[in-house]
Amino acid sequence: MGFIKTPVKGMNDFLPSEMAIRQKALQSIRETYAAFGFSEIETPCMEHIENLTGKQGGENEKLIFKVLKRGAALSRALEKGEDLADSGMRYDLTLPLSRFYAQNGASLSAPFKALQIGNVWRADQPQKGRFRQFTQCDIDILGDASVLAEIELIGATSLMLSKLLAGTGVEGITVHINDRRILKGMALSVGFPEESLDSIFIILDKLDKIGEDGVQKELLEMGLEEKAVSRYLSLFSRTADSVSEFCSLLGEEFLPASVPAGLDTILSCVKSSLPDHVSLKFDPTLVRGMGYYTGTIFEVKLNEYNFSIAGGGRYDEMIGKFSGQKVPACGFSIGFERIITILRDHPVEAEKSAEGIALLVENGLAPEKLQEIFLSAAALRGEGKRVTVLPLKKNAKFQIDRLMEEGFADIRRIYRNS
Amino acid sequence: MGFIKTPVKGMNDFLPSEMAIRQKALQSIRETYAAFGFSEIETPCMEHIENLTGKQGGENEKLIFKVLKRGAALSRALEKGEDLADSGMRYDLTLPLSRFYAQNGASLSAPFKALQIGNVWRADQPQKGRFRQFTQCDIDILGDASVLAEIELIGATSLMLSKLLAGTGVEGITVHINDRRILKGMALSVGFPEESLDSIFIILDKLDKIGEDGVQKELLEMGLEEKAVSRYLSLFSRTADSVSEFCSLLGEEFLPASVPAGLDTILSCVKSSLPDHVSLKFDPTLVRGMGYYTGTIFEVKLNEYNFSIAGGGRYDEMIGKFSGQKVPACGFSIGFERIITILRDHPVEAEKSAEGIALLVENGLAPEKLQEIFLSAAALRGEGKRVTVLPLKKNAKFQIDRLMEEGFADIRRIYRNS
Repeated sequence: MGFIKTPVKGMNDFLPSEMAIRQKALQSIRETYAAFGFSEIETPCMEHIENLTGKQGGENEKLIFKVLKRGAALSRALEKGEDLADSGMRYDLTLPLSRFYAQNGASLSAPFKALQIGNVWRADQPQKGRFRQFTQCDIDILGDASVLAEIELIGATSLMLSKLLAGTGVEGITVHINDRRILKGMALSVGFPEESLDSIFIILDKLDKIGEDGVQKELLEMGLEEKAVSRYLSLFSRTADSVSEFCSLLGEEFLPASVPAGLDTILSCVKSSLPDHVSLKFDPTLVRGMGYYTGTIFEVKLNEYNFSIAGGGRYDEMIGKFSGQKVPACGFSIGFERIITILRDHPVEAEKSAEGIALLVENGLAPEKLQEIFLSAAALRGEGKRVTVLPLKKNAKFQIDRLMEEGFADIRRIYRNS
Repeated sequence: MGFIKTPVKGMNDFLPSEMAIRQKALQSIRETYAAFGFSEIETPCMEHIENLTGKQGGENEKLIFKVLKRGAALSRALEKGEDLADSGMRYDLTLPLSRFYAQNGASLSAPFKALQIGNVWRADQPQKGRFRQFTQCDIDILGDASVLAEIELIGATSLMLSKLLAGTGVEGITVHINDRRILKGMALSVGFPEESLDSIFIILDKLDKIGEDGVQKELLEMGLEEKAVSRYLSLFSRTADSVSEFCSLLGEEFLPASVPAGLDTILSCVKSSLPDHVSLKFDPTLVRGMGYYTGTIFEVKLNEYNFSIAGGGRYDEMIGKFSGQKVPACGFSIGFERIITILRDHPVEAEKSAEGIALLVENGLAPEKLQEIFLSAAALRGEGKRVTVLPLKKNAKFQIDRLMEEGFADIRRIYRNS
């Protein structure tokens, strides 16, 4: 009958050991974000196909898992050659958040601090660490145009990551912060044409990999003036005590002074209470891919790997594009699956959790004896202990080894004649 | 551009107040089941279409949300008139569990005590309390043919429900228990033909609604012998101190004595440690719809409403049908969405959670002042307090009222000149 044992391509079964890591991480994430006043919300896993294909999702729109129409609607669509899908699986949590806010905004506090944790789906080519169903975890502040939003988002995510990674040995992280308007101002101030900016930023984004010489070479290959390119690159090597000082040469017409001043406020407020192992720095080379960012952008990197585990920024125009009503918005998204991989590969020395007790019962015990066993199990559970009652298997050694692995350190065998 | 604000038909957005109830319930469920040694697992939301349409899902197979093939596979399917879908959304958690066990069984302990919590999808006609995406919560014990499985399942679910409903005012529940083999033995012992059993049980299941007279009438309308019908109904009115005594008239050929004896053991062991507000009774009229049950069946009803909030039973044949390898199995599924409705409609007197603090900041504060505010917020959070820092809105009264509703009882306004 064609039963297939494997999960659908690119998707995962999670066994108990992995689920325990995921659940513990989720609980820690929820606790920290709740302490910062974020409220959890949830939206359905499916969205109207019209919303998903509304051209806000960029490349992700090519990767949508579409859900087939049903019944008469499907027959009609097939007959008339119309769209076969009426909905699809969400490819991120930002589009559903925009729809949620358009629908429910009037019932929400303003500004609204949202936490969303949920699965998203992308029909990508599966590869190591890239799955077709994966968990995203986003915080967003909607309706706050001030720097308070950035400070809360970065502060909360820093503390959350610091707690999550504590004890793994790879806990050192750096939050890089920049502003799209600084990026743009620097490029325009040396005379680069506005229409080349996207291409310039794609090259700048490779600085880590190809070095300054590589960037220079590629910028020249674009046909930009040699003098402008040199001036542009020299801007990045300036040292300064603040973002305002760093940007002081640009001039108001390219960058209003309020932008670097805002960034300095964010930096000073976040720095004053940075958790262990977290540092924060202004990084004028930080680009971030997504076209929809309008102001501050940030990214969290693991010091040892130069490997991004979270990112976000301000996107004041996006919700308006969906809902018609402009709403300032700023968000931070963590790479949940990447973090789980780190936690799995770098296990934290277990804080000896409540030791499990396994009561292994020989087959054929009298009902009165069984009753006693379950009474004592109930009493132990009442004391907060984890207790499992199981039949004693013939191959007891194998059974006991497995149970020990699962954290049942106290194993009691109960025989008919004991 | 056709942006649609509402969620997809029959699916829900959850606002913070509802999410808080759901998350609190889920945490309580996870804690109680963990105390009984159940391990949480997770499977993808999509399954191969071949598995979903393998005829094990009964009516649910008509309600599958199918996922469209993509790219070349879709073009080929359209051209050749082949199936358009290669996967679909799961309609329950039992089929995925069977697939999971077939795939991963060798890495799991035996017996395996599984907890699954996840969304399922059914393209049902939406109505009050029936949704197209909803959460299921199942525990199952695989690989244990003994009554220990039933005792653990009923004990764990009773305690879990007792804790969840405590303080709502509708906490009284009764666990009804029966065995498919007793149902069958009673019917065969009065001479009903084997091929009529399913129809007879459908009528018996209506006893609550149509009464004994109604059942008698419908059984006679089926063409069953009047004498047999009277004898059948009189069997149900016997009083007895145990299931064994109740069944003593049936004779071994219709019911091996080990079946009622097993039920008596289950009853005595569970009763010895029943939690508050839970009672347990043998109910020979309990039928349960699902065709796949092979032994014990159980159902939990709210005393005030005669309204089922959980159900389950033994299904020793099902996993083998999927995977080819016979595995004894017994499970309990709670009606999560129904329970959430009860919790929402009967709020528990709040155990004053850590009082929230809102720091409302006037626009334009000096960076040094802001830095102080975030330092003090960090200190309060370090003490375990929930703190939010927000811009002070012009309509402060409205803002403050909302925040109070959200549990921020301590609201501090911080002005430029204070």
